[in-house]
Amino acid sequence: MANSKYEYVRHFELADSLLPSTWLVVRIDGRGFHRFSQSHNFQKPNDRRSIELMNRCAIEVMKDIKDIILAYGESDEYSFIIPKTSNLYSRRASKISSTVVSLFASNFVMHWSEYFREDQLLYAPCFDSRTVCYPNDKILRDYLSWRQADCHINNLFNTTFWALVLKGGMTEIEAENKLKGTLSKDKNEILFTQYDINYNNIDAIYRKGSTIIRKKTEVSTISPRSGELITRTKLIPTAVYDDIIGQEFWDAHPELLEEKKKNNNHA
Amino acid sequence: MANSKYEYVRHFELADSLLPSTWLVVRIDGRGFHRFSQSHNFQKPNDRRSIELMNRCAIEVMKDIKDIILAYGESDEYSFIIPKTSNLYSRRASKISSTVVSLFASNFVMHWSEYFREDQLLYAPCFDSRTVCYPNDKILRDYLSWRQADCHINNLFNTTFWALVLKGGMTEIEAENKLKGTLSKDKNEILFTQYDINYNNIDAIYRKGSTIIRKKTEVSTISPRSGELITRTKLIPTAVYDDIIGQEFWDAHPELLEEKKKNNNHA
Amino acid sequence: MANSKYEYVRHFELADSLLPSTWLVVRIDGRGFHRFSQSHNFQKPNDRRSIELMNRCAIEVMKDIKDIILAYGESDEYSFIIPKTSNLYSRRASKISSTVVSLFASNFVMHWSEYFREDQLLYAPCFDSRTVCYPNDKILRDYLSWRQADCHINNLFNTTFWALVLKGGMTEIEAENKLKGTLSKDKNEILFTQYDINYNNIDAIYRKGSTIIRKKTEVSTISPRSGELITRTKLIPTAVYDDIIGQEFWDAHPELLEEKKKNNNHA
Amino acid sequence: MANSKYEYVRHFELADSLLPSTWLVVRIDGRGFHRFSQSHNFQKPNDRRSIELMNRCAIEVMKDIKDIILAYGESDEYSFIIPKTSNLYSRRASKISSTVVSLFASNFVMHWSEYFREDQLLYAPCFDSRTVCYPNDKILRDYLSWRQADCHINNLFNTTFWALVLKGGMTEIEAENKLKGTLSKDKNEILFTQYDINYNNIDAIYRKGSTIIRKKTEVSTISPRSGELITRTKLIPTAVYDDIIGQEFWDAHPELLEEKKKNNNHA
Repeated sequence: MANSKYEYVRHFELADSLLPSTWLVVRIDGRGFHRFSQSHNFQKPNDRRSIELMNRCAIEVMKDIKDIILAYGESDEYSFIIPKTSNLYSRRASKISSTVVSLFASNFVMHWSEYFREDQLLYAPCFDSRTVCYPNDKILRDYLSWRQADCHINNLFNTTFWALVLKGGMTEIEAENKLKGTLSKDKNEILFTQYDINYNNIDAIYRKGSTIIRKKTEVSTISPRSGELITRTKLIPTAVYDDIIGQEFWDAHPELLEEKKKNNNHA
Repeated sequence: MANSKYEYVRHFELADSLLPSTWLVVRIDGRGFHRFSQSHNFQKPNDRRSIELMNRCAIEVMKDIKDIILAYGESDEYSFIIPKTSNLYSRRASKISSTVVSLFASNFVMHWSEYFREDQLLYAPCFDSRTVCYPNDKILRDYLSWRQADCHINNLFNTTFWALVLKGGMTEIEAENKLKGTLSKDKNEILFTQYDINYNNIDAIYRKGSTIIRKKTEVSTISPRSGELITRTKLIPTAVYDDIIGQEFWDAHPELLEEKKKNNNHA
Repeated sequence: MANSKYEYVRHFELADSLLPSTWLVVRIDGRGFHRFSQSHNFQKPNDRRSIELMNRCAIEVMKDIKDIILAYGESDEYSFIIPKTSNLYSRRASKISSTVVSLFASNFVMHWSEYFREDQLLYAPCFDSRTVCYPNDKILRDYLSWRQADCHINNLFNTTFWALVLKGGMTEIEAENKLKGTLSKDKNEILFTQYDINYNNIDAIYRKGSTIIRKKTEVSTISPRSGELITRTKLIPTAVYDDIIGQEFWDAHPELLEEKKKNNNHA
Repeated sequence: MANSKYEYVRHFELADSLLPSTWLVVRIDGRGFHRFSQSHNFQKPNDRRSIELMNRCAIEVMKDIKDIILAYGESDEYSFIIPKTSNLYSRRASKISSTVVSLFASNFVMHWSEYFREDQLLYAPCFDSRTVCYPNDKILRDYLSWRQADCHINNLFNTTFWALVLKGGMTEIEAENKLKGTLSKDKNEILFTQYDINYNNIDAIYRKGSTIIRKKTEVSTISPRSGELITRTKLIPTAVYDDIIGQEFWDAHPELLEEKKKNNNHA
């Protein structure tokens, strides 16, 4: 075969398998999304269309990659959770990372106009991704808590910052200086006394970020044979805006941390 | 900070730096493109629109990521070459792989309709990617030769196979059996004697694949101040369909393998 | 500094940190110990001196590296267990592997004559090592069970094989053929009926291998000031020959799997 | 097989192959050798016995591991060079690192008394090791230059420091202060004017470190059959004390950097 004398170059492709029996988290992050959000006139402090598009992309990724049990998104990032027992792509890091991120990116463009309507997509978005192992359930939950706490901190800051700018008439530099060194309660106070905003009444989608889980959903189809309406229960990836730091969410969804049984002995 | 007690989870993100002073090749591959090409009625043996869209995506990637000096594509795959001296993203494997593949995927959707016109994109495409180190110029060239030889082998097979099916009226199974065990010269012979096709006259884009290099190109703009036409020379990523196995191509483009000087001592 | 222009070569030393919060097992293995045991006339099926020397080396390693909580040895191999919470050498794989194996090897030579007396050490022994992460207690125990089951299987085979050869007068090839395809109960039967050996009465050190744990031990010293005899309790690495597959051993030593508390939040 | 239900733990042993076609350098380093040299009354600034023992160990390692073409040692460290074409232990990092370091450590104890005579070895020495890839000849030579420049800098400092202490009657702190901020020429000046030492006349073994290469050596044996004296040329690992930074050494030993031909196509 003409090709065989070059084929030795395959040996430079080194293995990159991830440790078995650990949670895998694929986190994708928008590259240059500050500029991207400006070019596309994202509303401040949050652009609902952007969040819903991000959620849609995450849902499409989960429809395609069945091993993902949960995804959590905030701002321009999304984390996809793959169980300890999964053998997706033989747990090869680059295969997992790249598949998720490219599906997310292509769906982002694919579904843009459903959310942004007449606002054209001006250039192709870019995301990076990495896959990280977390050895047990507590650390996985701490990872998700880390991201949701990050969402809270950023959203409270942004909400106050843009209130000062958009409603208070401050320049961005003035608003930044005003908020320097303030605590959460100071920002809550500013929002409440100056702008009549009770932060806790703001939509949960902004305060809590979006969590996609596979929800039991009634799906109706018409039988092609009998013409009857058939209703079945399917697991459909669905966004919720819950607190995922506390215990309540995990008690309500015990299947998430349950050990999936496999036909091998991996614990 | 509310976030700090969870921040330890960062330590699970392990370093994945690639060896300095080696060529980096990011290879992306279409996932499930057999089905994708069927769903979208790709022409056989080659769909010109698909090739040109792939090339366009590679060009967009190179416009964005300046460190890439050359890209080579065939079928549903593309390889991007980053020089030994590059410090792109501190040579972090997952950052490089994911950025390239997500840009490629989002551009694929972005520019689909320019090439496929009224043929709608039915679902989001997916690519995987990996980044591999090659320690020296000879091995890098062998890598590229490997891919171009692969292109040749596949294209000769496909051209003959689809001639037997589309012009010869064979079933796909008959055509496959007919070609089992045949050598290149046998396939050339079938094409020439039965279908009057001289394989060497087939468009180079099919036989050789596409190589994107940064070509000196005259670019004309009208000065916003004087209204004059200004012509400058810029390096524009451009597709060529050359043989890259032989020495000639590399002699014609000596800058490709030239050591880029850097402000450190990396050899 | 004269050295600075070469110092860039440091960047080729890539990070090799092991995943936090996982059990680390350093396994060392004798290289070429079949020949080594022949050159040094090891007794068959087991050489007590060799086992005790191996145990001594493991004890010396544990005296030096306090993070190791348990070691298990059989034949020419030893496994050293480092807890999930340990930050030994910042969990760098090569640092941990090489320190353990070089200490083991130098102690092997150092203490040879205490166990082998007039039988000279003819050449320097060699061991390899690797460090592997195990994400949770169950898998760690399965690892140790794997090694102890291996010890059992090999020792039953060897005991029977050498009975056939040394007591039964068979050649080694005859003995091997005789044992081909036999089950455990067949070997037990041969030992019992032909050689009056009840396998279960064989010393546990041979059947179970050696487990080194840090045992509370009364240590007496004479006070340099008062001349009084002072008795204190210290944790001294000590060999036991217990079954470590069953639950009993772990119930008797609950501290082994207990989470060590640390001053950070690693779970 | 009793063992099979535990055997899955093997999957936690991840691949650690090193990039093909790169130079491999195994560097070992004494752990805690400051204390070790004090406990064993090493002479200052250099202990000839220690250097010769280190060299002996490196020679024994090279006699055992034929792939190593050169070793360079200074102080309590040694670097072993394995060619780009080598496939030693399938280029597995931990196997290579651990084999070299354990052989070195066991030989250190084995041959101690040949060099230290009545001075007993008080405790087992320990070395760590790591294996690093260097992609081309220039970088490999820069690596070796880095180590030899390090040797020069340290030895000039130590020689001056200990002259001030041992001959000049300074305390160690006084000597350290005296040398703070001095350049090479200052130290040369102190040695020459105050202690009549011409640094360049100091034995090369101290100034240049030790380089072990495989030297063609005439070896005489008496034929067991004829009783005749037979003289053959063999390649014997031998210490030289040359400058390895300049070109001369490499011109004198062209085989060191020559591409070893292999029966595969690795470049």
